[in-house]
Amino acid sequence: MEENNYSDDQYGRARVQDSPELIAYYKELETLGAGALWTVANDIEPWEPRSSSVPMLWKYDDLRDLVLKSSELVTPEQAGRRVVYLVNDNRKDVSAAVGWLYTGIQVTRPGESTSAHRHRASALRFIMEGEKGYTVVDGNKIMLEVNDFVITPNSTWHEHGVEEGGKTCIWQDGLDIPLVNALEANDYAVYDGKQPLTAPLNFSPMTYGGAGLIPADKTWDKPYSPLFKYSWKNVYPALLEAQKVNEVNPFDGIFMQYSNPLTGGHVMQTMGASMQLLPAGFKGKAHKHTGSFVYQCAKGKGYTIINGKRFDWKERDIFCVPSWAWHEHHNLSETEDACLFNFNDLPVIEGLGLFQGRELTENNGHQQVQ
Amino acid sequence: MEENNYSDDQYGRARVQDSPELIAYYKELETLGAGALWTVANDIEPWEPRSSSVPMLWKYDDLRDLVLKSSELVTPEQAGRRVVYLVNDNRKDVSAAVGWLYTGIQVTRPGESTSAHRHRASALRFIMEGEKGYTVVDGNKIMLEVNDFVITPNSTWHEHGVEEGGKTCIWQDGLDIPLVNALEANDYAVYDGKQPLTAPLNFSPMTYGGAGLIPADKTWDKPYSPLFKYSWKNVYPALLEAQKVNEVNPFDGIFMQYSNPLTGGHVMQTMGASMQLLPAGFKGKAHKHTGSFVYQCAKGKGYTIINGKRFDWKERDIFCVPSWAWHEHHNLSETEDACLFNFNDLPVIEGLGLFQGRELTENNGHQQVQ
Amino acid sequence: MEENNYSDDQYGRARVQDSPELIAYYKELETLGAGALWTVANDIEPWEPRSSSVPMLWKYDDLRDLVLKSSELVTPEQAGRRVVYLVNDNRKDVSAAVGWLYTGIQVTRPGESTSAHRHRASALRFIMEGEKGYTVVDGNKIMLEVNDFVITPNSTWHEHGVEEGGKTCIWQDGLDIPLVNALEANDYAVYDGKQPLTAPLNFSPMTYGGAGLIPADKTWDKPYSPLFKYSWKNVYPALLEAQKVNEVNPFDGIFMQYSNPLTGGHVMQTMGASMQLLPAGFKGKAHKHTGSFVYQCAKGKGYTIINGKRFDWKERDIFCVPSWAWHEHHNLSETEDACLFNFNDLPVIEGLGLFQGRELTENNGHQQVQ
Amino acid sequence: MEENNYSDDQYGRARVQDSPELIAYYKELETLGAGALWTVANDIEPWEPRSSSVPMLWKYDDLRDLVLKSSELVTPEQAGRRVVYLVNDNRKDVSAAVGWLYTGIQVTRPGESTSAHRHRASALRFIMEGEKGYTVVDGNKIMLEVNDFVITPNSTWHEHGVEEGGKTCIWQDGLDIPLVNALEANDYAVYDGKQPLTAPLNFSPMTYGGAGLIPADKTWDKPYSPLFKYSWKNVYPALLEAQKVNEVNPFDGIFMQYSNPLTGGHVMQTMGASMQLLPAGFKGKAHKHTGSFVYQCAKGKGYTIINGKRFDWKERDIFCVPSWAWHEHHNLSETEDACLFNFNDLPVIEGLGLFQGRELTENNGHQQVQ
Repeated sequence: MEENNYSDDQYGRARVQDSPELIAYYKELETLGAGALWTVANDIEPWEPRSSSVPMLWKYDDLRDLVLKSSELVTPEQAGRRVVYLVNDNRKDVSAAVGWLYTGIQVTRPGESTSAHRHRASALRFIMEGEKGYTVVDGNKIMLEVNDFVITPNSTWHEHGVEEGGKTCIWQDGLDIPLVNALEANDYAVYDGKQPLTAPLNFSPMTYGGAGLIPADKTWDKPYSPLFKYSWKNVYPALLEAQKVNEVNPFDGIFMQYSNPLTGGHVMQTMGASMQLLPAGFKGKAHKHTGSFVYQCAKGKGYTIINGKRFDWKERDIFCVPSWAWHEHHNLSETEDACLFNFNDLPVIEGLGLFQGRELTENNGHQQVQ
Repeated sequence: MEENNYSDDQYGRARVQDSPELIAYYKELETLGAGALWTVANDIEPWEPRSSSVPMLWKYDDLRDLVLKSSELVTPEQAGRRVVYLVNDNRKDVSAAVGWLYTGIQVTRPGESTSAHRHRASALRFIMEGEKGYTVVDGNKIMLEVNDFVITPNSTWHEHGVEEGGKTCIWQDGLDIPLVNALEANDYAVYDGKQPLTAPLNFSPMTYGGAGLIPADKTWDKPYSPLFKYSWKNVYPALLEAQKVNEVNPFDGIFMQYSNPLTGGHVMQTMGASMQLLPAGFKGKAHKHTGSFVYQCAKGKGYTIINGKRFDWKERDIFCVPSWAWHEHHNLSETEDACLFNFNDLPVIEGLGLFQGRELTENNGHQQVQ
Repeated sequence: MEENNYSDDQYGRARVQDSPELIAYYKELETLGAGALWTVANDIEPWEPRSSSVPMLWKYDDLRDLVLKSSELVTPEQAGRRVVYLVNDNRKDVSAAVGWLYTGIQVTRPGESTSAHRHRASALRFIMEGEKGYTVVDGNKIMLEVNDFVITPNSTWHEHGVEEGGKTCIWQDGLDIPLVNALEANDYAVYDGKQPLTAPLNFSPMTYGGAGLIPADKTWDKPYSPLFKYSWKNVYPALLEAQKVNEVNPFDGIFMQYSNPLTGGHVMQTMGASMQLLPAGFKGKAHKHTGSFVYQCAKGKGYTIINGKRFDWKERDIFCVPSWAWHEHHNLSETEDACLFNFNDLPVIEGLGLFQGRELTENNGHQQVQ
Repeated sequence: MEENNYSDDQYGRARVQDSPELIAYYKELETLGAGALWTVANDIEPWEPRSSSVPMLWKYDDLRDLVLKSSELVTPEQAGRRVVYLVNDNRKDVSAAVGWLYTGIQVTRPGESTSAHRHRASALRFIMEGEKGYTVVDGNKIMLEVNDFVITPNSTWHEHGVEEGGKTCIWQDGLDIPLVNALEANDYAVYDGKQPLTAPLNFSPMTYGGAGLIPADKTWDKPYSPLFKYSWKNVYPALLEAQKVNEVNPFDGIFMQYSNPLTGGHVMQTMGASMQLLPAGFKGKAHKHTGSFVYQCAKGKGYTIINGKRFDWKERDIFCVPSWAWHEHHNLSETEDACLFNFNDLPVIEGLGLFQGRELTENNGHQQVQ
C-alpha cells in the first residue's frame, strides 16, 4: 500500500519544473506574504522523521575540572546558576543538548545556596557527586544523594544549596527551556528573598514514597508527580528485583520509568525519565524511534552505537540520542551490571500522537560501526 | 435553605390521609402492578443515609479454635473453600458482614491447596498467621506473610495453598459477593485442573512494587492494580515515615490507601482498602460517612466507638462500621502504636457519586458511650 | 477450560454432607455471628448472573385513566409528587420496576407545580403527553415536549409544573432510588420556597445542544451531562440520518445512546438511557446481558420476547427487561419504524466491571415463545 | 512576591562581567561542546512569553486571482497539492503562518482530484467557495459546503476533489507540519492508487453528528474526533441559539469550540478550532495569552487590533495572532453579526501546561492604535 522507494519523482509528490512564468508567479506571491506550496512541499513533508541534532558524548573526565573551576570564577550570586551547559553542535541557536532539551552540570560548594526562582519551563536533576546537597521545591526541602533523581516542575519555586559541612555537590540539570521557548510560552520570576519552608524536611518522598500507597486523606490536583525525589537507594534494588523475574528487553535491558504514582504516567507534563539496567555482558539490539534522549551513566561502563558510530561511556558520562537515530547499548563488563539514566521528551511525543519506532532487522539487529 | 427538622409533616413530603375512595384506588392500582408513590415516598426517600447493618465485633480469641476445627471437619476438596464467614445480624439474608461486603476466615494446613476458580466478584485477603502460604492469581504465584494484603480481582483465576513444611495459615477473605449478587451480575467457573504458573514466583510484586517506578516497556490494560501484593514489610515502614512528616488526621491517624500505581486509584473496581496507624495515645474524633467498612486490627489494641457503643479490639480482631454510622478510633496504649486494616466499598460509593460525610461537632468531637 | 455442566457435585463446589458433629458446629458458629461458608457457598456463587426480577409490561391503555384520576384524588401539595409507580412483582420490597430501578408515571395539570427538592438519587423523565410542561433543574427552567428526555441529576434542586394555558402533562419518571437506598447513601432536602431562576429559559439545551460544539469560554466540573434536555425534534432526525449510512444492529436496530457531550459517556453516574429505532419489519435477534432496563415505546408498535414470553407493546407502553434475560425486539409494522426509549443501570454495571453478554445461537437467534 | 521590574540587573539573574580569564574559560568549554550557562541564561529565560512571529493579514481580494491562476499553471498531478501557502514574515524558514502552524489556500476545479497520501502531521480545512467539493478520510467520503470545517487527522489517508458538474472549490488548509517537523516526528506515505470507499457517503457526520447522541453499539478508539465534518448549517444556528441565552464574552463574543463528542476535548491532538460570533456593534476588549491562532472571517466585516496595529478584515480574509500578542476584535457593522473561524495549537499549549493569559486593564481594556 505504501511505496517506500522514497523517490520524489512520483505521483503524490511535488514535481513542478521552473519556468519563467512560474518564477514571475512566485515573485508575485512573495509580495503578498505567500508562496507556492509545491516549491517547498517535498522539503517540509519528509518521508521519515528527520532530526537536526547529532549524537554527542560529553566525558565527565574532560568536564569535571572545568565545572569545578567555574566555582572559582563566578559566584552563584553573579551567575544566577553556576552551570556548564552541554550543547549540541547543531542546536547552538537554541542552547539545546538534543532536540529541544537543555542539559547542564551545576556545581555548588558547601555553604552555598542559590536564589529562588520559577519559570514555566520544567526542570529535573540527577545527582553526580557530593554530600548534603538539597533542593527546595515549593517550600519542601529535600536532601539529595548520588544517583537520586529529583524534579522541579513547571512554575514551582525552587532553589538549591549544600549545607555547611557537606561536600561539593555536582549534578546534572535537565530542562525543557528550548521547547518552552519554541512554543513561545516561557516566563520567569525571581523570589523576593528566601522561600519559607512550608513542609517538614523530605515531606514529599516520605509521604508519597511508599510503593502502592498514597495518603488516604489528601488530594493532589497538580499535573505532575507529588513524589519529588526518586532515591537511588530504592531504585537500584527495584531494578535488581525486577531483573530476577523479567525477561531482559533486547533493546533496553531492565527498563523502569520514573512514574507519577497518582497516574502511572510521566513525572511531568513535558519531560519523562527512566533508568535502565544493562546486565553483565548485555549486548543490546538496535532500534530507532521518535523522541529525544539525554543519558547519564549512573553505574558501570559500556558503549552505545548511534547511527553507526560508537560512543564509549562510563559512570557520569553524558550522551544524547536524537529522534529517529538508530541506537543500541552494550555493557562492556562481563561481571557487573551497568545503569543508564535518561530524561526525554516522551510526554510531548506520546501526548501529541507522534511516537513511532522501528527495529533493525538486518545483521541480527546490530549496526555496522563506521 | 434546607429545612433540617426532618418532619414528614411539611410541604414537600407526602401527607395524604387514607380514605375509602383512596383505598379502593390503591387496590385497583395493585392489580396492574402499580401503586401510588405517596404511600411509600417518605419511606423510600429518607432524610439521611440509612443502613440496615449493625456494628459488630468478632473476637479472634473466640473464633480461632472454631476456625482451626473446621480443618478437622471438612477438607478443602469437600468445602471448596474452608472458611468461617462472619455475618451481620441484620444481613444474614445476603451473607454480608456489613452492607454488601462479605468477609470470612480461611484456614489452610501445610500441604493443602484449593482448586482454582474464578468469579465476577472480586476478592482480597489479609494474612493473619502462618508460614509459606501462597496464592496464585492468573498464573502468578505469590508468597504470603502476616499482615500482607493481596488481591484477586474480578474474573482472575485463583487458588491458594500452604507449602509442605509451612505452618497452618489463617487469613481473612474479603469479597463483594453480596454486591455483585445484588447487581445480578455474578458468575462462577471451575478451572479444570491446576493453573499453570505463567510467571516467575512473585512476578507481580517484584515488577510493580518499586515506589514511583513502573516497567517502561510493558503495558497493562486491566481495570485493577498490577500490584497483587502489598507487603507489610513495606507498608509499616511507610506509615512510620509518613508519621514523621505529617500531621495526624484527627479521625484516622496516619492514613494510607492501598493504591493502583498506574492510576492512583483504588486497587480494584468494587473494593478499596487502607491501613491506618493510630499513634500511641491516639484518641480519634468521631465522624460518619457513606460507605461500609470491615476492619481488622493488624497491630496493638484499642477500641472503636460506633454509634455510641464501644467495641474493644486487639490484634486479629475484626469489626465493621456500617454506612453513616458515627465512629471514632482510640489506641489503648500510651507507648505503642496500633494499626487498623480495612477494606470497603468506596470505589462504588465514590464512583457513583454517593460519598458524603459529617464530623461530630458537639462534646469536642467525641460520642457519649451508651 | 471452564466446565459448563453447572453441576454442584464436582470438585471446586461445596459438597459437604450434614452430620451431627457438623450441625453442632454450625450452631456454635451462629452464636458468634458466624457460619460455615460451605453451607451457603453454592447459593451465593451462582454459575451465571441471576435476577430476582420478572419481565413485566404496563399497558398505557390500562393505566392512563388511573393516572389522571390521581389528579382528582390528591393535590401535588398533599402528595409531594402525584405519581403512579410501576412495581415489579418480585421487587415490591424495594419499590423497584426492575433490578434497582424505580419508575413511575406523573401527572401535572395546567397551572400546577410541585415544590422543589433534591436527593442523592438521580432522576430522569420521558415525556408522554401534554403541552407547556416544564422542569426546573438547579435554577434552569426547561420546557418539555412529547418524547423529550430530560435529566435531574444527583443532588440538583428540581421541581416541575405545567404553565397556565397548557395541557395536562404526563411523563415517565425514572430514578435510582432503590439502588441508592440499597447502597445506604440516599438523602433528601426540601427547598424552602420556590427556586429562583438563575439562567434564561432553556439555557442548558441552547448552550450545550450544538452537535460537536461546546462553549469555548466555560468550564463544567459536574460529574453529569451539562445538557439537561435531549429533544425528540433532534433525536428522531438523527436516528433517521444514522439509519441511512449504518447497518442495522441485529439485536437493537439503529441504536443511539444519550451522551454527555463533554465525556462521550452516560448522562449521569448511575443511570444511562438510549433510544433505538426498529426499522419497518425489523425482527431482532435474541441476546442477554447484565444490566436492568426499563423501556417505553416512543413510536409505533411491536413486541418483545423476554425469556420466551411475548410482550406486545405500542406507543406509551412501558416494559422491563431484567438482567441476564434473553430478549428480542420485533416491529409489527411492515411500513412504519418503531422507536423504543430505555433507561438502565449500565453506568453502574459497566463502571464496576460487571458487564457481560451472550448471543442466542440456536434457532437462528430467535427464542421459542412459550 | 514576584518582582516585575524585569531588570536583568538583579539578584536571581545572570550578571557576570567578561574578563580575560573568563573569555579563555569560555573558549575551552566550547571545544568540549559546552558553554557557561550565565552567558545565555537571561536570553533563554525571558520574563514573559516571547513570539518570533508578527501579526499578518492576507486579504482574499489580493489572493483569489493568484490562487485561481495556479490552476492554470500546474496540475494537481504535478503539484501534489495546488496550494498557495501563507507565510509569516518571520517564519519563512519553517513555512509557518504563525508559530508552528502552516496554512494555505487550495484550489480544485470540477472533475479534478488529488492523490491520496498520509502523514504524521494533522490537517484541517475550512471551505471558502465552490460546490460539490469533497474529501475522503480513511475511506469515508464527505461532501463540503462553504464554511464547513473538516478534519483529516494524524496518519489518516486523505484525498480531495470536486465532482464533475460542481463549481471550482477553494478552501483553507491548516496543518501542524512546522510543529511536527520541529518535533522531528513527521513522515509521509503515498497511497498506491485511489482509496476504496469503505463507508457510505457522509458516514461520519451522519453517524456522529447528532447532538448529545452517540452510537450505542460502536466503539471508537482513535485519539481524535469521530466527527470529521462540522457543518456551517448546524454551527451558525447553534451560535444564534447560544447568543439568546448567554452573556457576550467581552473578548470573544459568542465563542464555540469544535469538540470531539466522545471527550469534550479538541478535535485533534495537536490542533484545535473554534468559531466565534461577534454581535452587531461588538467592540471586544483586549487580552493576550499563549498559543498561536490563524483566523478566517466566515461572515461579516470588522477589524482586529493586534499589538496596537489595526487589521481590517471581511469575509474570507485570513489573519494571524501570535502567542502573547494583545488582541481585540471589533465588528464594523451595527446591524449584522460577524463570524470568525480560527484554528490554533491550544491542544499543545494546554496539554503541556503552558497556557496562561492576561487581560488589558488600562484604557478600559482597549489598546491604543499606533
